[in-house]
Amino acid sequence: MKTTRENLAVLDTADPLARFRAEFELPDGVIYLDGNSLGPLPRMVRERVSACVDHEWGQGLIRSWNDAGWIDLPTAVGDKIGRLIGAEPETVVATDSTSVNLFKVLAAALALRPERKVVVSEKSNFPTDLYMVEGLTELLGKGHELRLIDDPSELPRALGEDVAAVMLTHVNYRSGLMHDMAAVTSAVHAAGALAIWDLAHSAGAVPVDLSGAAADFAVGCGYKYLNGGPGAPAFVYVAPRHQQAVRQPLTGWFAHKAPFAFDHRFEPTDGIKRFLCGTPPVLAMTALDAALDIWSDVDMAVLREKSVALTECFIELVENRCAGLGLTLASPREAAQRGSQVSFAHKDGYPVMQALIAGGVIGDFRAPDLLRFGFTALYTRFVDVWDAVEQLEETLRTRSWDRPEFHARAAVT
Amino acid sequence: MKTTRENLAVLDTADPLARFRAEFELPDGVIYLDGNSLGPLPRMVRERVSACVDHEWGQGLIRSWNDAGWIDLPTAVGDKIGRLIGAEPETVVATDSTSVNLFKVLAAALALRPERKVVVSEKSNFPTDLYMVEGLTELLGKGHELRLIDDPSELPRALGEDVAAVMLTHVNYRSGLMHDMAAVTSAVHAAGALAIWDLAHSAGAVPVDLSGAAADFAVGCGYKYLNGGPGAPAFVYVAPRHQQAVRQPLTGWFAHKAPFAFDHRFEPTDGIKRFLCGTPPVLAMTALDAALDIWSDVDMAVLREKSVALTECFIELVENRCAGLGLTLASPREAAQRGSQVSFAHKDGYPVMQALIAGGVIGDFRAPDLLRFGFTALYTRFVDVWDAVEQLEETLRTRSWDRPEFHARAAVT
Repeated sequence: MKTTRENLAVLDTADPLARFRAEFELPDGVIYLDGNSLGPLPRMVRERVSACVDHEWGQGLIRSWNDAGWIDLPTAVGDKIGRLIGAEPETVVATDSTSVNLFKVLAAALALRPERKVVVSEKSNFPTDLYMVEGLTELLGKGHELRLIDDPSELPRALGEDVAAVMLTHVNYRSGLMHDMAAVTSAVHAAGALAIWDLAHSAGAVPVDLSGAAADFAVGCGYKYLNGGPGAPAFVYVAPRHQQAVRQPLTGWFAHKAPFAFDHRFEPTDGIKRFLCGTPPVLAMTALDAALDIWSDVDMAVLREKSVALTECFIELVENRCAGLGLTLASPREAAQRGSQVSFAHKDGYPVMQALIAGGVIGDFRAPDLLRFGFTALYTRFVDVWDAVEQLEETLRTRSWDRPEFHARAAVT
Repeated sequence: MKTTRENLAVLDTADPLARFRAEFELPDGVIYLDGNSLGPLPRMVRERVSACVDHEWGQGLIRSWNDAGWIDLPTAVGDKIGRLIGAEPETVVATDSTSVNLFKVLAAALALRPERKVVVSEKSNFPTDLYMVEGLTELLGKGHELRLIDDPSELPRALGEDVAAVMLTHVNYRSGLMHDMAAVTSAVHAAGALAIWDLAHSAGAVPVDLSGAAADFAVGCGYKYLNGGPGAPAFVYVAPRHQQAVRQPLTGWFAHKAPFAFDHRFEPTDGIKRFLCGTPPVLAMTALDAALDIWSDVDMAVLREKSVALTECFIELVENRCAGLGLTLASPREAAQRGSQVSFAHKDGYPVMQALIAGGVIGDFRAPDLLRFGFTALYTRFVDVWDAVEQLEETLRTRSWDRPEFHARAAVT
């Protein structure tokens, strides 16, 4: 049966996740396909942040560390995230940024494999992940090395006896390629190394089973599919079997066994809280906490089913309607290998995306030539996919992106 | 002339800073003497955070990184803080937590003095500062050592040729003792070492002149006297003369010369922005940014004059009215050596403070026996000092703190 807007509207009517769209503030006239970069505002967040500012901070003042439970936010938020990524209770904390958390787990992993000097990753990994390895190895000055593979197929060959850890982003930020976490982790362990997973494009996007995959460490982001707000706190996971053995070097007072004893010597607390560092950012943590409440009755299998249907539909419609207009699929064609996003290459990707955004279809551009579109099953409808493709086709056919204003580069591209 | 409540009310009437009190939300029935731990809510923050959530995030979505200037917040906020601490433009960024920023500057300082292995600090420094040195030196595994002095007078003897850096908190968190920043920095430099200042209890509390003192590095906190909200972003200062030479190890993508080129190799940007790391926390940064706008026409000399008058008045009244009730001044008696806080020791300090808080006078307790009171000249009135002392006297005379509920320890003490 030919795909029509009417058929897609029928799918929306039958969508078991349809009711979640009302949980979000979505601007009129916008089709938002960039929730993989910054999730939209959940309505509940607005209320909770206001209450936190006005009552907890404004009226409760310092007393709210106890009375409003601020002190427990990093673990409470961590546990809410843990349920979405197959993590056991008390194995996740929300804290710091993804970059800072990577530094912690990288240092912890290298300390667990002192005789090994190599961290393996992909050249196409999100750059900050690679930069953090660079920063750590330069600081250590002990001959550690970052070994980058160009393609996942090279991983077996890269897994020598010198490898301490393999650090991969589960779903690639550019292509959306999704690794088989269990299989890769198993191969990494067979080589005597540790597996570190970045879940920036996975948490809230696809089912993840850290425990089932026997992952060692994971980090991830609060502001993409988890909708915690711009620059929301990140999270870090440490497998229970490592928690008592590992130390991380950013030994701030919130990682201390008794922070309010104000002892001048550091003594790490037990468990995952030793991956905390300084005072937690309460306003940001409250926003993320509220955003996570949406997930309490989301079935990740149902979400994945819709996510796959959305991306399949997008690829099919783009390839049918924009054939010959300069687009090349840059994501895996096989749904099982794809996260919740689709990228197409276009030689004028930057101005094309600017023209789309000006017309209300918001995706993003990744240098040098990728148009990237995120499909978030909680609030994206099938008719949105139709309408977005219609505008993409129109933009390409009319070459509206030729206008000079679409070529001016912004600070954030 | 004897101090009376009436005389103090006259001082309030003549106070050139009196108008700033209206900038803050202060709960009824509370005398808030804990702004040195968590500053109260500035009215402007409520509006700016709402606007950020509703409009910038809710309506602008990803576009707000450019359109709302989110991308520039770390430097814009940094410059606003810089004006309060005698820092040159483009030498301060707001980012991460104080603990994380200490890690950066400690690593940077040790790299500038590779042949020296000692960091000197005070045993009475805020513990997280010491813990961060421990974490870094353990990570490096190169025989670095934290040398702790018990008293500032021991500093000259501690300054051997093995000292790479001296890390001090300008105003001690417990006693309020204020170091002579220029003199100490000069002595540190004479010994060939670098001076790292923690301004947690100084920024917005006392005049600071980092540039005039020739400080090398500084860090500080956004949520105390700067009123940026619970867990607000911290800041980091690097003297212009070091900025091109130093690297810090938390090399996240916001420290990259071209973060949106997504190059897989790290290349540090120029200047202070290389002390950034991951994606900035926009909601928290917006709150801090708004809170800092209050300071644009505050004269720090006038603020200091009132701060000294408040602490002098408090000490005088307590020592007169609570004589024989078990209190001992634990702060310098000499105003020039004191920050903007006063501590008194009392053997039952914890329940005494709980009783005070229950009665609406909010200070805090620092183990083992300190009652700590912060005097923030922007919103504390002279009559507040009177009323607080009256309640302290009453609490001690009636032994109201004997009640069992005041002895129950909370998570945050």
